[in-house]
Amino acid sequence: MKIALAQINAHIGHFEGNVARMLAAVEEAKLQGADIVVFPELSTCGYPPRDFLEFDDFVHLADAAVQRLAEAARGIAILVGSPTRNPVPEGKDLYNSAYFLAEGAVRFVQHKTLLPTYDVFDEYRYFEPATQFRVLEFKGKRIAVTICEDIWNIGNENPLYTVCPLDEMAPLQPDLIINLSASPFNYAHSHGRISVVKANVERYGIPMFYVNQVGAQTELIFDGGSMVARPGGKIFDELPYFEECVRTYDLNEVLTQPGPGEQPKEKYRLIHDALLLGLRDYFGKLGLRQAILGLSGGIDSAVTAVLAARALGPENVRGLLLPSQFSSGHSVDDARQLTENLGMRYDVVPIGPAYDSFLQTLEPFFEGRPFDLAEENLQARIRAVLLMGFSNKFGPILLNTSNKSEAAVGYGTLYGDMCGGLSVLGDVYKTEVYQLAEYINKDGEVIPRNSIVKPPSAELRPNQKDSDSLPEYDILDQILYQYIDRHQSPQDLIEMGFEEALVRRVLRLVNINEFKRHQTPPILRVSGKAFGVGRRMPIVGKYLA
Amino acid sequence: MKIALAQINAHIGHFEGNVARMLAAVEEAKLQGADIVVFPELSTCGYPPRDFLEFDDFVHLADAAVQRLAEAARGIAILVGSPTRNPVPEGKDLYNSAYFLAEGAVRFVQHKTLLPTYDVFDEYRYFEPATQFRVLEFKGKRIAVTICEDIWNIGNENPLYTVCPLDEMAPLQPDLIINLSASPFNYAHSHGRISVVKANVERYGIPMFYVNQVGAQTELIFDGGSMVARPGGKIFDELPYFEECVRTYDLNEVLTQPGPGEQPKEKYRLIHDALLLGLRDYFGKLGLRQAILGLSGGIDSAVTAVLAARALGPENVRGLLLPSQFSSGHSVDDARQLTENLGMRYDVVPIGPAYDSFLQTLEPFFEGRPFDLAEENLQARIRAVLLMGFSNKFGPILLNTSNKSEAAVGYGTLYGDMCGGLSVLGDVYKTEVYQLAEYINKDGEVIPRNSIVKPPSAELRPNQKDSDSLPEYDILDQILYQYIDRHQSPQDLIEMGFEEALVRRVLRLVNINEFKRHQTPPILRVSGKAFGVGRRMPIVGKYLA
Repeated sequence: MKIALAQINAHIGHFEGNVARMLAAVEEAKLQGADIVVFPELSTCGYPPRDFLEFDDFVHLADAAVQRLAEAARGIAILVGSPTRNPVPEGKDLYNSAYFLAEGAVRFVQHKTLLPTYDVFDEYRYFEPATQFRVLEFKGKRIAVTICEDIWNIGNENPLYTVCPLDEMAPLQPDLIINLSASPFNYAHSHGRISVVKANVERYGIPMFYVNQVGAQTELIFDGGSMVARPGGKIFDELPYFEECVRTYDLNEVLTQPGPGEQPKEKYRLIHDALLLGLRDYFGKLGLRQAILGLSGGIDSAVTAVLAARALGPENVRGLLLPSQFSSGHSVDDARQLTENLGMRYDVVPIGPAYDSFLQTLEPFFEGRPFDLAEENLQARIRAVLLMGFSNKFGPILLNTSNKSEAAVGYGTLYGDMCGGLSVLGDVYKTEVYQLAEYINKDGEVIPRNSIVKPPSAELRPNQKDSDSLPEYDILDQILYQYIDRHQSPQDLIEMGFEEALVRRVLRLVNINEFKRHQTPPILRVSGKAFGVGRRMPIVGKYLA
Repeated sequence: MKIALAQINAHIGHFEGNVARMLAAVEEAKLQGADIVVFPELSTCGYPPRDFLEFDDFVHLADAAVQRLAEAARGIAILVGSPTRNPVPEGKDLYNSAYFLAEGAVRFVQHKTLLPTYDVFDEYRYFEPATQFRVLEFKGKRIAVTICEDIWNIGNENPLYTVCPLDEMAPLQPDLIINLSASPFNYAHSHGRISVVKANVERYGIPMFYVNQVGAQTELIFDGGSMVARPGGKIFDELPYFEECVRTYDLNEVLTQPGPGEQPKEKYRLIHDALLLGLRDYFGKLGLRQAILGLSGGIDSAVTAVLAARALGPENVRGLLLPSQFSSGHSVDDARQLTENLGMRYDVVPIGPAYDSFLQTLEPFFEGRPFDLAEENLQARIRAVLLMGFSNKFGPILLNTSNKSEAAVGYGTLYGDMCGGLSVLGDVYKTEVYQLAEYINKDGEVIPRNSIVKPPSAELRPNQKDSDSLPEYDILDQILYQYIDRHQSPQDLIEMGFEEALVRRVLRLVNINEFKRHQTPPILRVSGKAFGVGRRMPIVGKYLA
């Protein structure tokens, strides 16, 4: 039997486009001689559809997509993920299902059992878990059909579920496992995913064909990396990361040959490529083409500009240099050098006149009070107004350039540098931004060296440095990582050797700045715990605040 | 047996404050002669704690709070909601539990079975459901202890769950039901809640003592309205709405007397009072006192100002009148009249100079292109910069004045009039804002009549009216309500008699403006479907877009 894995880039709610994409993949799989082609989880509607699932009309359109695919299932079988209505009134209204289509009709349906409801996942919000387990018989083989999380409840120290679907199917003696996934990227996740697939094939002694969605859906980036695993616990082959692919495997070969094995993985290459896909799909799926961003001469805006130029083409990215009286000369030079290196357009738009005009308007009210945060924020907001002016007049979408460290401690101006349609680096700590810059420069200087080596500064008052108000980033980022990504307590951090007063101060900053993050643009997620939909905190919460 | 219902205003994560509040209620209940005092769901930590529950340290603090309450449970028993660790590795790490405390120790624990995971609720994200059902024996009575949703799976046409906890407990022959709740307000919800309580006491033929949380937690407003229901299906008494209260009931009296019965409920009075509580607690729980807002002379800012003045005191609310060349004379007059009626401070801050300065700065780039959205938004953003300047300089929090109709169709400027720390009217449709204004004016003119009767306008270009770009609000709001609150499809709406092109246009506007709502401040929730945490939509979604 020949099995094609079709790692496609579904677009949420774009049924027409998704069906067209799948029909093309069906043709490709036929050309490759496949007996069956497997698509990712919920690929009729795209994953995650979120509350669109509460619209009956949306589910109806998914049903219609399944029917259109069923008609194409002639001379080849199709496994595709789509929602199913729960026929009984009790319980949630839907199942998250895998449809087996053959000879023009639906022949078999298996529902998902384990419904991830943590971090960015909300599946129990919509779906009832499966309680019936069958195997699919096809071409003399018994196939255990599983959906994403269904294979994730083995070998964990802290299992999230009390059921294990493959344990339920094992007595039916399946010959192979197929898994339809939509498993989003984070820089550590591909390792975890491979371990889980290996643990499964070891435990059940049969091969697994694992198909993952590829492409970004707003903040979630799906990396593909579909794979085939041999019963002994080795990976036979991995599909590429971050791009669509249809590849067909002969079951006998998988059982008898070693295969090409795993691909190498490197953290900053993964993050870099993930962010490019995230940018490309955010623009592409919204029908947008052009971006704009403010270039301060600092590292965050430089890295963001490089990623945007690579994702959208330098001709589609416009930089604004928005110097003030507090900008150092090298800021403008560094920014200008960057745009030259990238071959992108830039304009210099001074903020002085608008700043002076605001100060004059406010003077009767501010009554000679000293320069403080109000004037600092004023500058950041004037820049945002100018950038949004260009955006509204010419159409490019403003990219946000804040990093995860700033977002964590609230070191940014709401409606100022926190503006933008998409946050590119909001899940990348400052120390990781440096690493990413080095990765970008690995074959030659793209980002001016000076943007990397100079001390970080917001340049909103004379001789300001980030370190005036924040701890050094190498310390700060460690504390933030332990608290945000690993949920460590103040006591844990103190026991790790961080100074108590510093720990309390940083954790308090994180918690009291929830109100700012509430209004942040969507943040491309590259870590296991990003700000946004996967981290839900009450703004009025008093814990550590 | 005498049972005290203690409807308290817990503050998420403020363990110290919550314990102090509960100890005071214990004393009050003792004075009232109670044998047992009942607190709401998760009242040690406040509801909803959201992802704080993923911090072991947070759960530890909740445990410590239970211990402190246990020590106070002498001469009176206590029922209090708090999280419990799941002792086995399989399944979620926590239970959502009711602790029975007596004679200085924990004597009984019942976990919650039905874990709401829809709309604003995410309980299955954190909690494992109960699978064991016991009754609490106290003073010769058998008490069925339930938590919030546990009583909500009867009499529904479309039950969300496959279990019914009270059906499991019924064979143990309980004498009464106690329910610990944290059930947030919406203007239709108190009716639903009363129906459910009645259905339960009818079905099981025993009385119910139902205690609800009161107070707002960011966007969620808990209205109290705790109640006692008689076995026959009548409400014996309701506690007040929107305020704390401890009230003790004699079980025999409940069984034999009719009681005062239900309170009257009126939609706009409920919304009005809910918004006051929402405002008061947002400020109070964040340790803030003062608000600022822009007053356009229109109805939205007028209603917001009234609510703020009533919630925080007029001396704590400052209005800015920010006229432009497009503002009509009566706009300033109406706004000024409002501040006089309310006795609040206002200042007039013209936006002309900043506007001219921006136009000059942008002139070389805008190259004589015609006035369009860019210039309209510029005005709205200058107003936001000025308001935030006052906020940063003097400390008041900016209130957002957008309504639900505008938020729905994206009729507002991001980083302009969409700014603010809290959206007061973001869950109130424009036609409901008018009703709320009439309610406010019922005993005399607070909001100038002209602000109510004049045609709505953003005043961002000459003679602009909302109806230039939007359908009339009485039509628009009906379509929005059917789509947003009731999940009706385009076909449903067309069958209701709305014109197809209009339906498609409005639904498309709703869906393509998800990116704007993503950056909206938290919106006080007063309906069954508010924008925010209870409505999760993919920005890149292509459905109806």
